[in-house]
Amino acid sequence: MKQIALYGKGGIGKSTTSANLSAALVNRGLSVMQIGCDPKRDSTRMLMKGILIPTVLDLIRERGEENLTLDDVVFTGYKGVRCVEAGGPEPGVGCAGRGIIATFQLLERLSAFDEDIIVYDVLGDVVCGGFAMPMRKGYAQEIYLVTSGELMSLYAANNICKAISRISQNVRQVCRLGGVICNSRNLPDEEKLVGAFASEVGSKIIAYIPRSGLVQYAELNNQTVIEFAPDSSLSATYQSLAEEIMTNTDFVIPKPLEIEELEKLARSYLPTIDHQGINH
Amino acid sequence: MKQIALYGKGGIGKSTTSANLSAALVNRGLSVMQIGCDPKRDSTRMLMKGILIPTVLDLIRERGEENLTLDDVVFTGYKGVRCVEAGGPEPGVGCAGRGIIATFQLLERLSAFDEDIIVYDVLGDVVCGGFAMPMRKGYAQEIYLVTSGELMSLYAANNICKAISRISQNVRQVCRLGGVICNSRNLPDEEKLVGAFASEVGSKIIAYIPRSGLVQYAELNNQTVIEFAPDSSLSATYQSLAEEIMTNTDFVIPKPLEIEELEKLARSYLPTIDHQGINH
Repeated sequence: MKQIALYGKGGIGKSTTSANLSAALVNRGLSVMQIGCDPKRDSTRMLMKGILIPTVLDLIRERGEENLTLDDVVFTGYKGVRCVEAGGPEPGVGCAGRGIIATFQLLERLSAFDEDIIVYDVLGDVVCGGFAMPMRKGYAQEIYLVTSGELMSLYAANNICKAISRISQNVRQVCRLGGVICNSRNLPDEEKLVGAFASEVGSKIIAYIPRSGLVQYAELNNQTVIEFAPDSSLSATYQSLAEEIMTNTDFVIPKPLEIEELEKLARSYLPTIDHQGINH
Repeated sequence: MKQIALYGKGGIGKSTTSANLSAALVNRGLSVMQIGCDPKRDSTRMLMKGILIPTVLDLIRERGEENLTLDDVVFTGYKGVRCVEAGGPEPGVGCAGRGIIATFQLLERLSAFDEDIIVYDVLGDVVCGGFAMPMRKGYAQEIYLVTSGELMSLYAANNICKAISRISQNVRQVCRLGGVICNSRNLPDEEKLVGAFASEVGSKIIAYIPRSGLVQYAELNNQTVIEFAPDSSLSATYQSLAEEIMTNTDFVIPKPLEIEELEKLARSYLPTIDHQGINH
């Protein structure tokens, strides 16, 4: 069983990328489970015809862990992709990471982990011990960073590199960086900047996903792009991402940048701005 | 001593708003301390001529808490604003919130809290128990949400409302919502959308900050807008924000929205999109 995790800043397109990746993987004949580990709980929505499935943490809170069965927490979506949402802590109380691990432990107890590939979709805004738990506990083994060329997104990606690097100091850990997925925001020189970042941390871009209104249109129709427009070039991009991930053999312990280096890198690709705030 | 906290999504302009607010407050003759509670640790940078001051958590890790003096952790910036950066957990290890509280406790032990007003600048992407600690422990008493009209930003703001509401169930808690600061991203109908959100949660917009290249230009010069362009209309906006905050008497326990309600609200202000992904 292959276990991969997409980490990235909230709002950067992790869920869209994960859902389209899962759809592409299932189209290759693989059995797939996608586990959303973002309190926003909409990771699997486009695989589920737009339905927000109940989260494992909510179900545990409402019914008690001992009363839950596999059918309560695992939902079958597009072409059989099995969908789970871990959910988040009650705002203001508790640790998000502990909740995620409680979810994984419940899934293990219910023997849910028997797919060819598990795709974890994890929020990477704050890589405290909590959100790093899927790595530390051996669930998230192959990490892919989802980022645009925006500084805050690269900042989050770099922090995830720090977490992988820190966790890999423990030789028993199997967590490695598999590559960077550039989810474009249509910034100038964005692919070059993200490529330079990937190279600096010792990795590479494994997919460049162009910004496209098709994503939004597919989602308004409650579908992934793979389902909504299977013959589109964007669909082909997601299929090739799936191919890259299944055949990838290049896993590294990343070398994260210092914040000053990261800002310098980002600034070197920024358009210049004059006193009136006009871009050139 | 007044203690206010600006909470918002990472990258939304919390630090810019906080630093300009502190500069405006000190210009009113108040003594001000600003405490950055975002692992990105650049909250106070524009008050410090662009210097990233060392974080309290790094200093505690390097030298031991018992060896630190006030001068090690508090730095004097623009017109005497006292600047502190709490810092963050080592990526992959530990709880961000516990670190923030360790910082506050050290500051109290060193008798650092003797200003007219303390401005906390807190990351609000994930309001787990960690980042809510400044509220729960009675430090962040008057909360201001910083948000644009982007869904992810409103989503974070709504989660912060959930945290305030949850924490206020404890009658001894003094944490209340003082208002919403709309930091514009130049989206269509943005002020209306953010105003509708503020009204739905039971609060109001207390400042609308237009998007301006002046912010970026001031920051490239390592200054706040207040310092760089004191006579600009943007400066006047920050000064009026300071006035609003000092005279505000309207504090509420917010009524957060369900995620579906929030999405419906945001969608009702979205431009429509056709099959080709063209905005209308």
